[in-house]
Amino acid sequence: MWKNVAIIGVGLIGGSIGLALRERRLAKRVVGVGHRAASLRKAKRIGAVSETTLRLERGVEDADLVVVATPIAQIVDQVREAGVASRPGTLITDAGSTKATIVASLDGQLPDGVRFVGSHPLAGSEKSGPAAAIADLFVGRVAVVTPCPTTAAGAAEEAADFWSALGATVFMMSPEEHDAALASTSHLPHLIASLLAEVTPREDLPLTASGWQDTTRIAAGDAELWTQILMDNRRNVLNSLARFEKTMQAARRAIERGDAKTLRRLLTEAKAIRDAVGS
Amino acid sequence: MWKNVAIIGVGLIGGSIGLALRERRLAKRVVGVGHRAASLRKAKRIGAVSETTLRLERGVEDADLVVVATPIAQIVDQVREAGVASRPGTLITDAGSTKATIVASLDGQLPDGVRFVGSHPLAGSEKSGPAAAIADLFVGRVAVVTPCPTTAAGAAEEAADFWSALGATVFMMSPEEHDAALASTSHLPHLIASLLAEVTPREDLPLTASGWQDTTRIAAGDAELWTQILMDNRRNVLNSLARFEKTMQAARRAIERGDAKTLRRLLTEAKAIRDAVGS
Repeated sequence: MWKNVAIIGVGLIGGSIGLALRERRLAKRVVGVGHRAASLRKAKRIGAVSETTLRLERGVEDADLVVVATPIAQIVDQVREAGVASRPGTLITDAGSTKATIVASLDGQLPDGVRFVGSHPLAGSEKSGPAAAIADLFVGRVAVVTPCPTTAAGAAEEAADFWSALGATVFMMSPEEHDAALASTSHLPHLIASLLAEVTPREDLPLTASGWQDTTRIAAGDAELWTQILMDNRRNVLNSLARFEKTMQAARRAIERGDAKTLRRLLTEAKAIRDAVGS
Repeated sequence: MWKNVAIIGVGLIGGSIGLALRERRLAKRVVGVGHRAASLRKAKRIGAVSETTLRLERGVEDADLVVVATPIAQIVDQVREAGVASRPGTLITDAGSTKATIVASLDGQLPDGVRFVGSHPLAGSEKSGPAAAIADLFVGRVAVVTPCPTTAAGAAEEAADFWSALGATVFMMSPEEHDAALASTSHLPHLIASLLAEVTPREDLPLTASGWQDTTRIAAGDAELWTQILMDNRRNVLNSLARFEKTMQAARRAIERGDAKTLRRLLTEAKAIRDAVGS
């Protein structure tokens, strides 16, 4: 489906994209671009890429599709750099967890004929690095493609085809809609999980069981990556957090008053929402 | 190891105890006691019990060990009832998620020669009922046994042997120590997971992924059961919640100020704690 795909950043997401492209025979060449030779070697050894380079401009020069799968603080610069080195007609997308800042920063910044549209595959994990990559990471998962009014014709559809080809279900929405929704469904849960781990007294850790383990699992995610995400999307995160605090205060008051009825209603509603999503 | 074991309540916990006792050939007879004939039939069909009865006093009359595995609001009355119907020498224990109220309520309430000690196997799940029971539910898990100053000699050790025989690692501590620790490691996480599910806008649920699913998983637990637990242990739960709120406010201020350094430190500490516990 693609002749040459360049993947910038061969960690969990980039590595999994490469594995999926190659196992599904969706690309003739997959070039891995990175700044650490060891990661690139690892990505090539597991079969995620067919060749590698430390030089971004070399990696993208023949690409018809460039996927930037690096931490969000690097994405804007790397898309710009890839844009300058790409041939006209190339589609560039990314895999960053936030979209509004990235998409706005790139608006009107790319050479004529080079197209960019933002993407976000909802397929992270608390693990990272090419060693954690798997070919079916995107199967049955959601990928969001976020066109804006100035996105070039066809770019969003082409990016959607790409994520669909990797097995994902694609949603299209504006970068702003994406960031507001993900604040609730991903960024706030990460913050809350981290707070919960943080306030657990060390001496009580032997008495944790599967409930604590599930609830705090994502707190094992990369701290720098998540600092970037939470700060980039801070306005939406603070809105989601305010909603959480309000409901938490209502729960606290119910517990203080011994008001079992209010607490039971809250837990029953929460269970209904959780049951609706499934495992 | 036991001639006659009576299990009162044949749900996930009681059913799993029965399966473990029978598969490991630790008891000659395992009598299941319940108030719903359908659950008892189901427990017998899956091999969790060798016989069943709806009448508690009949179920325990020949037992050398009685395990009360019902929701915490019922445990005190059922232990009392079992005590009256038991032979001298019988050991009674329970599997309730809170201990201080139950143990204090039973102090001096049992006939001479019938012994009680509180237990809590940390092996719940968001599932419930005998259909969810598995023989190795307790393998590699923790069980807490909670003697108090008036606990009969040998009772705690015998209960510890019981949970060890099912595969659990046993900790002994006072009921009060148990409840303070579990507020942090289990009860607060349940409340927080429920709040997180509750505040997620319904229209954003299609954009949830594994992070949200992990973090909210235990919100699918039984609402009535958890209302009882949170209310019974409310003093400790409120203490744990106050600690959580304080750290949450520090995180909120850091995000408001754009103070990435403070946020990164918090996420880094949380990751270290989570990594220390493992999967």
